[in-house]
Amino acid sequence: MNGSVGAGVDEFELIRRHLAALGATRSDVVLGPGDDAALVQAPPGRQLAMTMDTVLAGRHFPHDLPADSVGHRALAVNLSDLAAMGAEPAWALMSLAMPSADETWLAEFAQGLGDLARRFDVAVAGGDLVQGPLAVSIQLTGFAPARGALRRDGARVGDEVWVSGALGGAMAALEGGLEETRVRDPGLHARFAAPQPRVNLGRELVGIASSAIDVSDGLAADLLHVLDASGVGAAVRSEDVPVDPGASGYLSSARALELALSGGDDYELCFTAPPDRADAVREAASSCDLQVSRIGYCVAGTGLSITAGGRSLVLKGKGWNHFGAGQ
Amino acid sequence: MNGSVGAGVDEFELIRRHLAALGATRSDVVLGPGDDAALVQAPPGRQLAMTMDTVLAGRHFPHDLPADSVGHRALAVNLSDLAAMGAEPAWALMSLAMPSADETWLAEFAQGLGDLARRFDVAVAGGDLVQGPLAVSIQLTGFAPARGALRRDGARVGDEVWVSGALGGAMAALEGGLEETRVRDPGLHARFAAPQPRVNLGRELVGIASSAIDVSDGLAADLLHVLDASGVGAAVRSEDVPVDPGASGYLSSARALELALSGGDDYELCFTAPPDRADAVREAASSCDLQVSRIGYCVAGTGLSITAGGRSLVLKGKGWNHFGAGQ
Repeated sequence: MNGSVGAGVDEFELIRRHLAALGATRSDVVLGPGDDAALVQAPPGRQLAMTMDTVLAGRHFPHDLPADSVGHRALAVNLSDLAAMGAEPAWALMSLAMPSADETWLAEFAQGLGDLARRFDVAVAGGDLVQGPLAVSIQLTGFAPARGALRRDGARVGDEVWVSGALGGAMAALEGGLEETRVRDPGLHARFAAPQPRVNLGRELVGIASSAIDVSDGLAADLLHVLDASGVGAAVRSEDVPVDPGASGYLSSARALELALSGGDDYELCFTAPPDRADAVREAASSCDLQVSRIGYCVAGTGLSITAGGRSLVLKGKGWNHFGAGQ
Repeated sequence: MNGSVGAGVDEFELIRRHLAALGATRSDVVLGPGDDAALVQAPPGRQLAMTMDTVLAGRHFPHDLPADSVGHRALAVNLSDLAAMGAEPAWALMSLAMPSADETWLAEFAQGLGDLARRFDVAVAGGDLVQGPLAVSIQLTGFAPARGALRRDGARVGDEVWVSGALGGAMAALEGGLEETRVRDPGLHARFAAPQPRVNLGRELVGIASSAIDVSDGLAADLLHVLDASGVGAAVRSEDVPVDPGASGYLSSARALELALSGGDDYELCFTAPPDRADAVREAASSCDLQVSRIGYCVAGTGLSITAGGRSLVLKGKGWNHFGAGQ
């Protein structure tokens, strides 16, 4: 809990005012924000799942994204990582860099982050505030499932490939214009402004799915990470990939499909499961009020084969580079 | 483990190459870098101490600071936070923002960070790499001492105030010029370029010290945090404050004392202990080959009174603002 923002503004007071309330929401937080470190009590026998992601203005979100959305997204991307492990979120630490002390912005940021934190019973137990280009780093710790976490390396030949929800909506909202979609299609707008991490689905899939990853860089790129880690290939039919229905209001169907395959930022789960667990997958999704789509299956070999109409595209190696692709 | 740096460069490969070796150094790391989250096994019954600090180029260190020093400092500031709790460091997660993919820089950074990590048996279990202004966020988790962590709120009236090592050296090295001091006084240079977190001293002080904080913002500001949290005041004699001997080679004695009182970045420990534990304090320090200085004592009331010669200065409230003070 060090650092400061701007001459004459007391950063500790700012932190206390807006973020301290987020730190004392769990009984296993023994000592929340305000000391050199937070103290928490881990449950006995459970492995901890720990992730950390940074979002920067101008790179991961537009500079003028409302503060509550910045706060929501910063936590959501980390919740999504734990969802992909089937873990139960518990404690967050946050480092916030902002160009100047702006209490209104900070209050809205804390609101957006806090609403999502409460929904998943996450305590923001500590962190720091520094002056710099707007960026939020969040480290999130959760409890791994006792039956074993979902990992990227568990896909086997013959497993089916699934994805939750619909894809391409987040990037379609960006391409359609966030201000425009906010007014005309709030549902699509929210796909970017307030993504919903699939924490409950991830936990339900423990013992069912053989591997999982969250769709942050794009379906193809993320699925390739699973295939690489598991030592298998996969064949996906693009007709089976669930394209966000809102995208068609702004984009051609070809572009909407492209974004569904490679757009990223949707924070759905892509996972594999043996064919005889298909009913269990659907039940797990249904219990979370989520759609799931079976989009292909794992094959011997390497790489991802995507068929569209009669044609087939084979992707290998590292897949698309989210930023390198010119997005 | 998401994000990327620069078109055509595969960030996952960069991370794997330079940082993966830092992630598998402890047997309690069940799953290191490369999945959506790391998996670790916490020891039963121990509270966890968790801290997170960000260092930004141009704010917390000069843009041209060598990469190994950036890596060392980024971990050191977090180790210092755990030292101030008396905790045993274990697992780090790191988010690194860099303007462009620079493998040479990254290799040196990993070297500096890795050398310090190995010294304190810290595994860098995960994190991400993003393109942006140079900044390093590290989240560090450790095991709190079974007998209770050192906190800021435990100082009592009559307790003596101690500080380890010598103060003002880090800022004196900056003011003297890092390149200049590197050649002429490597010891002083290292006070900024490679600060030594007092992890072992912190652990030795458990059961002896009544409160502790690390000197990151400056002795006066940091001690005031302890006093505020504990609800006591303190009187400190500036003649008893250990001024870094190297500072006198570059600065007037008045300026050296000023930096010792308010310079920050020294990462020594400031702590309080009952007078009858003075011998135990000295033994603890001696077992770590460290000097300790008794610089004052806690009094009823609030604020910090610093006497120099015959004059006295009383500081209250939030103390100096590290950046607001124009440093």
